[in-house]
Amino acid sequence: MGKNKQLTQRSEDFSTWYNELIFRAELADHSPVRGSMVIRPWGYGIWEHMQRALDDMFKETGHQNVYFPLLIPMSFIEKEKDHIEGFKPELVVVTHAGGKELEEPLVVRPTSETVVMSMMAKWVQSYRDLPMKLNQWVNVMRWELRTRLFLRTSEFLWQEGHTLHATTEEAEEHTKIMLGVYRNFMENWMAMPPVTGLKSESEKFAGAVRSYSCEAMMQDNKALQAGTSHFLGQNFSRQFDVTFQSEVGKEEFGWNTSWGVSTRLLGGLIMTHGDDQGLVLPPKIAPIQVVIVPVKDLEDGSVLGKAESMCSELIAQGIRTKVDSRDFVNPGSKFYEWERKGVPIRLEIGPRDLENNQVVLVQRVVPEGQPKKEVLSQLEALGTMSKKLDSLQGLLLDNAVKRREDNSYRKVKTITELKEIMDGPGGYVYTGWCGDPAVELAIKEQTGATLRCIPEEEFRSTKTPHKCIGRDQKSEMEVVWAKAY
Amino acid sequence: MGKNKQLTQRSEDFSTWYNELIFRAELADHSPVRGSMVIRPWGYGIWEHMQRALDDMFKETGHQNVYFPLLIPMSFIEKEKDHIEGFKPELVVVTHAGGKELEEPLVVRPTSETVVMSMMAKWVQSYRDLPMKLNQWVNVMRWELRTRLFLRTSEFLWQEGHTLHATTEEAEEHTKIMLGVYRNFMENWMAMPPVTGLKSESEKFAGAVRSYSCEAMMQDNKALQAGTSHFLGQNFSRQFDVTFQSEVGKEEFGWNTSWGVSTRLLGGLIMTHGDDQGLVLPPKIAPIQVVIVPVKDLEDGSVLGKAESMCSELIAQGIRTKVDSRDFVNPGSKFYEWERKGVPIRLEIGPRDLENNQVVLVQRVVPEGQPKKEVLSQLEALGTMSKKLDSLQGLLLDNAVKRREDNSYRKVKTITELKEIMDGPGGYVYTGWCGDPAVELAIKEQTGATLRCIPEEEFRSTKTPHKCIGRDQKSEMEVVWAKAY
Repeated sequence: MGKNKQLTQRSEDFSTWYNELIFRAELADHSPVRGSMVIRPWGYGIWEHMQRALDDMFKETGHQNVYFPLLIPMSFIEKEKDHIEGFKPELVVVTHAGGKELEEPLVVRPTSETVVMSMMAKWVQSYRDLPMKLNQWVNVMRWELRTRLFLRTSEFLWQEGHTLHATTEEAEEHTKIMLGVYRNFMENWMAMPPVTGLKSESEKFAGAVRSYSCEAMMQDNKALQAGTSHFLGQNFSRQFDVTFQSEVGKEEFGWNTSWGVSTRLLGGLIMTHGDDQGLVLPPKIAPIQVVIVPVKDLEDGSVLGKAESMCSELIAQGIRTKVDSRDFVNPGSKFYEWERKGVPIRLEIGPRDLENNQVVLVQRVVPEGQPKKEVLSQLEALGTMSKKLDSLQGLLLDNAVKRREDNSYRKVKTITELKEIMDGPGGYVYTGWCGDPAVELAIKEQTGATLRCIPEEEFRSTKTPHKCIGRDQKSEMEVVWAKAY
Repeated sequence: MGKNKQLTQRSEDFSTWYNELIFRAELADHSPVRGSMVIRPWGYGIWEHMQRALDDMFKETGHQNVYFPLLIPMSFIEKEKDHIEGFKPELVVVTHAGGKELEEPLVVRPTSETVVMSMMAKWVQSYRDLPMKLNQWVNVMRWELRTRLFLRTSEFLWQEGHTLHATTEEAEEHTKIMLGVYRNFMENWMAMPPVTGLKSESEKFAGAVRSYSCEAMMQDNKALQAGTSHFLGQNFSRQFDVTFQSEVGKEEFGWNTSWGVSTRLLGGLIMTHGDDQGLVLPPKIAPIQVVIVPVKDLEDGSVLGKAESMCSELIAQGIRTKVDSRDFVNPGSKFYEWERKGVPIRLEIGPRDLENNQVVLVQRVVPEGQPKKEVLSQLEALGTMSKKLDSLQGLLLDNAVKRREDNSYRKVKTITELKEIMDGPGGYVYTGWCGDPAVELAIKEQTGATLRCIPEEEFRSTKTPHKCIGRDQKSEMEVVWAKAY
């Protein structure tokens, strides 16, 4: 495939477009082990910026980073019965080590609740040790038969937060605080606005009392569960004997939460903003925010010199800038490459620009109807760059919110109508629901949609529908249906 | 064990002191899986500061971070014959996944050369793609029978750099550049000055042409191999067919390097600076550089108020500062706790200090003969804090260099003399060596010392001894012997 060959168009084949984009933007690659991926420098660079932002937020909310071991005894995983039931089909198992068969098989962590609890039981004595708020950035494994880069891989990178609280109220509140942190991050860094809410019983985390999630809408109008926050109650603390002495001297079981986001977010990023030219990066998480391409140099190197001095000035402003000075790539190919990789702003400078103290500024995305290119004085380009990046960040969020709302349906009353939407454009469909899992099952079978969440108040329609969509019965709540990744 | 109970003294039992310190300073803990550790917030916080500093250095030297998969096909590991020979006894093997036995067992990475090479073969076409300079921060597993927290655990965290170059000269030079980065980091961040040099054939990395290492001297005068940098030649590129088209259009095999440091560095940190009160942290990698302890408050809370305003001012100066305002711990216990955890500087403030606009400043370590405590005006304390931290950083390095040189021996001529030193105080012994591995073996058997490295020029004695220590034969080079972790 020629380097500058057009990507498959989204409208033509969204799934092929997605895969091609990942390879052509050099985000990731398949590894020799089925279902595992290699994250390449450009993809990992984005992930590093996402990590840094999230990690700062976790620390601001009082969490400390730790490291728990990769391997977990099989007997631990089996202790919480819903937990093992949920994870058993996906477990990766170590049976031999150091040339010998192990007495007890060890599981490569699919998540770490069990081993975390076993240590919390040891560390916590009194209510004064609480709350205990931990987080770790690690790899986990869940064996998958059908895998897709970033979205569903046998190994992925994530952070998992684990907290222990003295009261059920505090733990439940913390579950929601972390849901809010995720939402804030997705909206204000990734420009990927999710609908947040509670999962139904059939969709909650294996071992949780209640799970909350962020459901982001992709450009094919399918939902991506992009982050989850779980209130675990005492389900694990009772199995692992995590007790503490309360203020009045009573021995009590602690209350847990756990929450995570993963490299799946990179898949969400691609499918939220990517276009037929390639990736589009929100400036806040772009490894390079501005790329400067010298179009043609003069003999004395003064064009490259100017590019480099502008680069230094932008870096001094805290803007991540790079000059692409490769002499074996022509300017056109450079333009395509950085567009494909999603860099928010490109500056082009040639001999005539140098003469006129000007520069050509090209935004990766502009408001509808505006030209992508503009010619600016160098002074103005330097002086307005930070503002331009901010408005680009805002534009991406506005576009994504608008797209989500344009593809949301709030007047659907029957499964037939729901099916029409799912067979057609897809989208988020808000309806009443009586709470019966049989309705979820029927809808899944008939339309392919699943219950994404019971949305938080602000996402709900003004009036909760009277009728459940699936039964001639009073609705207990409003819910969101969509096809999902 | 009472929280303020004295640690076992180093002079009494160095190894018990080490273990106690780790638990009492809450750096790490044993995990339920034999040989794996849990790194607790204080230990992980130090590791994060070490990571950040190293990562910045890697990026400054042109490296990009990536992620390669955890599991490696057994057939990959077996391709390079020295490599598999070295790692076979320590492999951790996955045989089952997703409820089925795998067709080919997968190895939990002990290191990633093989899988990195398999991908480089795919990514690199031309000399224009070179050098390729990658790094990853990951967990690895090497099954160990006798483990010690940080120093030797079955799972550990590390970074592994992998680079590919067009020429042998460039690759060998890069190997040394990275050795220099490690040395710089160990000296100027950790205040742990290593002797650097080349490993002998029998001690080099399994699969390398040449290995270089940093050998830091611990307080028990044993050496800790704290970081290694390997020139791999074409050993791996030939097995994995990593070729590129050269400038003149010829297909050639690439030249590789790999290099790593791990959480073992935390063990080195403890044994370089720790004392009978606990950990001692060099300011540059301390999660908290200054702790402020309000000794007793007035009714209006003005002592705590002053502590907090001083804290804000120090934070504004970029100094990592914390007020310990816990009301259920008495000041004395707080003093012990932060000493045990190694915080470089403590400020104590009580009602009388408030009245006199003063503060008590206590340095964790002071130059010999100086008092640990001084009373300063609050203004002076704020104004000189940054300088005090810098000189404390310098003092720790000076102390460590002095200790290393005080325990180095450069006039030893016979194995008998070497044995006397090893049976006695221990230390680094510089002698001549003819290059015969039989001498290494004999010395190891008779004295317990191993050949740590063939030191770089600046560490060598002024004149290379004429005679090999082990044989009545001309010496080819000067080498360093020591007992090692």
